[in-house]
Amino acid sequence: MNVGLENIKIGIVQTFCTADKEDNLTRTLNHIRTAASEGANIICLQELFNTLYFCHQEDYKFFDLAEPLTGNIIQILSTICKELSVVLVVPFFEKRATGVFHNTAAVIDADGSILGIYRKQHIPDDPGYYEKFYFTPGDGGYKSFQTKYGKIGVLICWDQWYPEAARLTAMNGAEIVFFPTAIGWPVDQDDKLNRKEFEAWQTIQRSHAIANGIHVVSVNRVGTEENNLFWGGSFVSDPFGEILYQAPHNKEDIHVIEIDTRLTEHFRQRWPFFRDRRIDTYQPITERFIDKD
Amino acid sequence: MNVGLENIKIGIVQTFCTADKEDNLTRTLNHIRTAASEGANIICLQELFNTLYFCHQEDYKFFDLAEPLTGNIIQILSTICKELSVVLVVPFFEKRATGVFHNTAAVIDADGSILGIYRKQHIPDDPGYYEKFYFTPGDGGYKSFQTKYGKIGVLICWDQWYPEAARLTAMNGAEIVFFPTAIGWPVDQDDKLNRKEFEAWQTIQRSHAIANGIHVVSVNRVGTEENNLFWGGSFVSDPFGEILYQAPHNKEDIHVIEIDTRLTEHFRQRWPFFRDRRIDTYQPITERFIDKD
Repeated sequence: MNVGLENIKIGIVQTFCTADKEDNLTRTLNHIRTAASEGANIICLQELFNTLYFCHQEDYKFFDLAEPLTGNIIQILSTICKELSVVLVVPFFEKRATGVFHNTAAVIDADGSILGIYRKQHIPDDPGYYEKFYFTPGDGGYKSFQTKYGKIGVLICWDQWYPEAARLTAMNGAEIVFFPTAIGWPVDQDDKLNRKEFEAWQTIQRSHAIANGIHVVSVNRVGTEENNLFWGGSFVSDPFGEILYQAPHNKEDIHVIEIDTRLTEHFRQRWPFFRDRRIDTYQPITERFIDKD
Repeated sequence: MNVGLENIKIGIVQTFCTADKEDNLTRTLNHIRTAASEGANIICLQELFNTLYFCHQEDYKFFDLAEPLTGNIIQILSTICKELSVVLVVPFFEKRATGVFHNTAAVIDADGSILGIYRKQHIPDDPGYYEKFYFTPGDGGYKSFQTKYGKIGVLICWDQWYPEAARLTAMNGAEIVFFPTAIGWPVDQDDKLNRKEFEAWQTIQRSHAIANGIHVVSVNRVGTEENNLFWGGSFVSDPFGEILYQAPHNKEDIHVIEIDTRLTEHFRQRWPFFRDRRIDTYQPITERFIDKD
């Protein structure tokens, strides 16, 4: 099927957040307009785009930040998608039901229709990232969304460390996978370890591009919140794992870059990894670990 | 269990091959002695270490290069393991039965005993790499081997592009995964594409280190055979995906480097990816692709 564009302009919105949700939304709407004015077809916002990264502590009050999919935020963004004819990946704190909250991304098509949602499936819990307290693990599986411009998938932050998640998203047909994220360094951590962590983070995502012959787009926040210096560094990788663009670590960045989705066909013919998968040998991946001692 | 060493000296034997099997074996034995004299505990040879990379064409005569596990080659290498007290990863062309040939690696312990074998499970077939003609896909699954010095796994060449293979090897307990390999550039290919291919090849293997919190050791051949310039570039990655050592592209290299296997514990506590795997969502990995259209 010939659906979408061969050359797609990807818009990255890497910004900071404040405690003022209205301010975050207003600034982000402006950023979306900026990216659209530069020709962006598909624009990705960062994880939990309209709030602080509140998971640095476990506090019930933060549940009040959540909104249902049917709430104002998604409605406002749907309207701007239609107006500007852009596709949006909108990561937000979702209230699904009483006591059931998710870290979710909605995919809104260029006509304003909500194509669907992805609910984060791998939930971290580490000092400063107490996400297991807030987010019920997603139960919707891995997905692709046929947007006006291309077939895309979404995974969120901690998902990015799991080759299984990228593989299954690609197997569902996604040719561009977006990773909205919120990751940073402790403010007092030394530069050498900072560099190692960023490099590992980027490398694992580049590897998803390579293993699956897809483009990867990772969008991270910037700014210091509590003890956390969010490291920005949003980037786009081609199917060879080559970085086409990388945003700075320490400031806002609204950037539009064109990708050529024909590279997926080209790459998968020349390095036909999907052809040779040994699906008869993969069953134990559904195990926790394999104990032999 | 406290088995093996915390600090293990890894020996890489990156060499060229000729049409003379005896010559290849003799030189490799010398290289093993060199590595052992520099303190190597575990030494890895390159894929099909004692023959040319014959898969550039489909010719029945090359089946004569194969040897059974019980043949002379493994016996000779077992003897040197015992003499030098080193562990060896020995990749060779195995004749398993009449008409059943594998691309195999034997793991020989420091006392000369054969701990087991791994038979390559992902078999390529591309111009210049007609492996499906020669090699029956391995049926032994993914493994770890408790050697005198550490718990290791082996995957071979094309396996290296599959996150599933690395994951399952790590889930079986391997804390160092060796990738004997034979990969190169067409002799007339431009430098830019050469660089991209090498970078993708190294990145996917570094990502296995990161995803699984393990060390990765990749050992490739050098030299020109037919139209193929084998790109060397053997390397060792720590669990952060950081390159601890990289061999040159264009010459033999016998190198010994110490790694600290305590990094696996350290890394897996701090980035606990295994804790949060969503094993309830991975079943479709055993599918070929997920068709929705």
